[in-house]
Amino acid sequence: MKKKYPKWVTELASIMDSPHKDVRERVRKVIQTEPFQNPPRETLDSYRESIWELLKIIADNDIGKIGIPEEYGGENDRNAFLAAFETIAESDISLLIKFGVQMGLFGGSIQNLGTEYHHKKYLRDAMEAKLPGCFAMTEGNHGSNVAGLETTITYHPESDTYIVNTPNEEAGKEYIGNAAVHARMASVFGQLIVEGKSRGVHCILVPVRDDQGKALAGVRIEDDGPKMGLNGVDNGRFWFDNVAVPRENLLNRFGGVDENGEYISEIESESRRFFTMLGTLVGGRVSIGSSALVAAKRALKIAVEHGLKRRQFGEEGKPETILMDYRLHQMRLIPRLAKTYALHFSLRELSEQYNKAETVEEGRIYERDAAALKAAATWHATETIQVCREACGGAGYITKKGFTDLKADTDIFTTFEGDNTVLQLLVARESLKDFGRQLKSVGPVTAGVEITFTQLKRYQLSLALLFSRGEISTTTLLALLKRREQQVLIDTGKRIRRRIKKDGLTSSAAFTEEGPQLAVFANAHTESLIFERFREALSVVNNQKVRSKLEALLELYGLTVLEEDRAWFLSSGLMPVWLCNSLQEMISQRVGLIRKDVNHLVTALNPGEM
Amino acid sequence: MKKKYPKWVTELASIMDSPHKDVRERVRKVIQTEPFQNPPRETLDSYRESIWELLKIIADNDIGKIGIPEEYGGENDRNAFLAAFETIAESDISLLIKFGVQMGLFGGSIQNLGTEYHHKKYLRDAMEAKLPGCFAMTEGNHGSNVAGLETTITYHPESDTYIVNTPNEEAGKEYIGNAAVHARMASVFGQLIVEGKSRGVHCILVPVRDDQGKALAGVRIEDDGPKMGLNGVDNGRFWFDNVAVPRENLLNRFGGVDENGEYISEIESESRRFFTMLGTLVGGRVSIGSSALVAAKRALKIAVEHGLKRRQFGEEGKPETILMDYRLHQMRLIPRLAKTYALHFSLRELSEQYNKAETVEEGRIYERDAAALKAAATWHATETIQVCREACGGAGYITKKGFTDLKADTDIFTTFEGDNTVLQLLVARESLKDFGRQLKSVGPVTAGVEITFTQLKRYQLSLALLFSRGEISTTTLLALLKRREQQVLIDTGKRIRRRIKKDGLTSSAAFTEEGPQLAVFANAHTESLIFERFREALSVVNNQKVRSKLEALLELYGLTVLEEDRAWFLSSGLMPVWLCNSLQEMISQRVGLIRKDVNHLVTALNPGEM
Repeated sequence: MKKKYPKWVTELASIMDSPHKDVRERVRKVIQTEPFQNPPRETLDSYRESIWELLKIIADNDIGKIGIPEEYGGENDRNAFLAAFETIAESDISLLIKFGVQMGLFGGSIQNLGTEYHHKKYLRDAMEAKLPGCFAMTEGNHGSNVAGLETTITYHPESDTYIVNTPNEEAGKEYIGNAAVHARMASVFGQLIVEGKSRGVHCILVPVRDDQGKALAGVRIEDDGPKMGLNGVDNGRFWFDNVAVPRENLLNRFGGVDENGEYISEIESESRRFFTMLGTLVGGRVSIGSSALVAAKRALKIAVEHGLKRRQFGEEGKPETILMDYRLHQMRLIPRLAKTYALHFSLRELSEQYNKAETVEEGRIYERDAAALKAAATWHATETIQVCREACGGAGYITKKGFTDLKADTDIFTTFEGDNTVLQLLVARESLKDFGRQLKSVGPVTAGVEITFTQLKRYQLSLALLFSRGEISTTTLLALLKRREQQVLIDTGKRIRRRIKKDGLTSSAAFTEEGPQLAVFANAHTESLIFERFREALSVVNNQKVRSKLEALLELYGLTVLEEDRAWFLSSGLMPVWLCNSLQEMISQRVGLIRKDVNHLVTALNPGEM
Repeated sequence: MKKKYPKWVTELASIMDSPHKDVRERVRKVIQTEPFQNPPRETLDSYRESIWELLKIIADNDIGKIGIPEEYGGENDRNAFLAAFETIAESDISLLIKFGVQMGLFGGSIQNLGTEYHHKKYLRDAMEAKLPGCFAMTEGNHGSNVAGLETTITYHPESDTYIVNTPNEEAGKEYIGNAAVHARMASVFGQLIVEGKSRGVHCILVPVRDDQGKALAGVRIEDDGPKMGLNGVDNGRFWFDNVAVPRENLLNRFGGVDENGEYISEIESESRRFFTMLGTLVGGRVSIGSSALVAAKRALKIAVEHGLKRRQFGEEGKPETILMDYRLHQMRLIPRLAKTYALHFSLRELSEQYNKAETVEEGRIYERDAAALKAAATWHATETIQVCREACGGAGYITKKGFTDLKADTDIFTTFEGDNTVLQLLVARESLKDFGRQLKSVGPVTAGVEITFTQLKRYQLSLALLFSRGEISTTTLLALLKRREQQVLIDTGKRIRRRIKKDGLTSSAAFTEEGPQLAVFANAHTESLIFERFREALSVVNNQKVRSKLEALLELYGLTVLEEDRAWFLSSGLMPVWLCNSLQEMISQRVGLIRKDVNHLVTALNPGEM
């Protein structure tokens, strides 16, 4: 049954699956079995039930446990666990998210925020889907601003319990996956209050339903009902009316009340404690980006294959022209194909660094880049699926073509696990901070800026030299992207300073006002990050043929980025006019070149379908 | 119950409804009644049935007949009919499309392609939904390229009938609304063959089901099944196996076989006949644009109202900041609000010219601009709904917020009634032809180009003068947009010529290769068209306050267009660097200004909800 492909194509597909090819194939063996094909979904209820049943099959195949320590039945391989998660995106995306909620968020909160007591008692059951749980962080009034959560977790010394309470209707937990039907327990985030003093956001395990699935006393549960997509996941709301929970249930890795009723934490600063806690949870962001990308890959394969078959118009007296032979059609799909490859490799490179950060600074740099790539990949997926649907015309609108679910199910990826816009602001803020740290040794920020300027001027000279040869290598492209990133960062810093010093704004107001500029920087950072990581990844590819194909994609990606922001490059004097005027032609050439391999390139992009 | 609004807001809303306020209110009276609120849609079948029932209510209120002559019970007002159609978009969008299929396409084909015989026999029943019909143009292999349809309509002199036939499986009629369940009759497009000679595409009425809804002999019908959206409309496929149809059923306004069995037509040229025929049908494109825009307006209202309530982060010790007060959030929504107003007025201005073209050339210019605005408005709707969903975060994903249907139902608008990409190519081709016609009197194309260049240089001088005053008026903005349009047109013409003369391509291949450039031109044309029409429309607004609000929106729209293509303006030397560098600030200022009225502006955008 298996098709034959040229050797470089299977080789490339294999590289796409690495370095966790084995775990991906293990997951595929499960999700390609019969129960996973068209699970019943006539009604909301039947869909939710069938996804839950599928999750149990996944769990029975020990996939949920891959990331937990051996002593709890796991394989202690977090990166393999994330690869397994991503691979489920090749199946039903509701199932992916159900897995993400149960194992990634609920299980992950126990693993990352809990201590041995919680691990022993709950970890295995969570990862085997025997203890259905959910992750109750977001509230009606607080999503992105987690520090502002209103739910309280108050320690009562008399009973040695915590009282979990929702102070007002709008502070109810909202959009919680697994909440409407399945969860028996919830990881609830709220302000910890000990002896009248707030200790910041902590997380506690709260039983929410009994064995018959009835809500426990003090717990009000509401169903979010139908959503745009992901209807196999039962999202819902919680309100807690002074629910008493044993002291042991607080996930106290970073802080909690000890047996003497006193608050203890190894991290003194409340804000640092908060960010450390959150940091352990956002590791999954890279995988959210990767799973969104799986959807984009599936969409591209459908659209390219459609475009290679469908004909329209053409020369008098000849067969009509294949859609894919229209330059305009190529321009809609092929640069997106290149960006998909670029994102794939950059996400993979970053993902392998998960948990490897040794200092707090390294950790924050990792988190920043994970945020950047999550935003880039999920927006790219939304746009790509849309363009691919349109590229298939009316056929793309019929559900059996595949876009209905791809589109609806992934639409929320740009919002959950960190709203993309908020993530962009985070990327810019962290970069500014990092820049400030780097400059600290040389003196005040302004002095530092001057120094950097001088460095950049030298840099610019060498660029001019490169251009004079009339060529544009990936080295030049990288230099241009890096140069833009630095320059925009400096400009952003200056603008913020001016808002504060000249316009008299508070720092917070200055950032609010300069939001669009922060997003511009985030974009410049992200694009140079993607380009650099992709370039690094392909430099170690041994197969010459594969590498040359990837190089063409890398160049196309870089040129496209240049073209999109050519106004900036022009007005900053970084791009000679001749280059600006040749960009379209250079892109067109690469697109024409890649056109020849486009069927193979979408095949290798989806190894699970080979 | 009615809210109170400032006077200028009700005044603006009234302008938005004009010049068919009466018919819009008449439609609203119907669609705001109880049966139209949440019609049953548990299953595909129940949804399709409830939409059909609602269509009958619409028809019973004589709304379908507004555009047909008084002698058939109508009001003979085509523009009012189109306004009525658009207004239905304020209700369920499946209902809009069901109405569009039954009255606009099926009824429209009888009205526009038929003669008195057909009008007398069918027009009233079609518009009263008593004769359920459909419009069978698109085939599995031919959508955009209508001239290439493969269905045959062969005249048989012996029986004095036409034989309608589908020559191969893929030539089946596809995506036909009303086909899967309700249609009793179909307007079938195919190649007319008389005495062995092909006469090009014609349209014939073919009965497809009996009174019990059973497919007639020789007609095979298939259900397209679930779609991404518009599931209240029953799309399906038809195959005809040599179905005999009486000679009278051919809609013979532009050509057909007479009682002597001879083909007659008032239009000699087959291609001209084809385009004339198609021209009468594409009038509806403007309304497709307008209805898509209704969806964008609804989305903007939801997102802006959400953004005015929801708070997130902010200054220490103060209430959190309203989302709408973040500059970045404003930048996501307010320029789109401005473009929505701009599109509204430009579509309205063009729509009022429907059927007013007196010469063939005027007709083609109208069709070109309708195509341009249809593409612009539908893409704008798709993007705006997406951005609005994201701007509402998780709340936007819950179906009750409203985006699920808005998004899924309008997604196909970029494809049907002319695929947007194909329409862009049409816009460019027509403009090039028109340009050629204008130059004819002065000599060969190259000479003409030179002359135009000289004119443009003078134009450029006056622009420089305008800039030197350091201001940018809407006159300047218009001049810039016009200037770009002309220049890009000239460049496009030159590139096509070069492909033919230098690269030796055929004309067809040159256009295929230069597709991206044609799209660039289409964009430049469309944006200057929108700006110009909006500017004209607001110049006649009497209320000073309303006019000033609209002027701010016009300026913002113009500046946004300039900013998006600033690389072109810069590199063409049309935009001084200082202007390029000030654009962001100028846009930011207008956005801040409009922010103050944003709640009123989304209210007036949706008069049906006031």
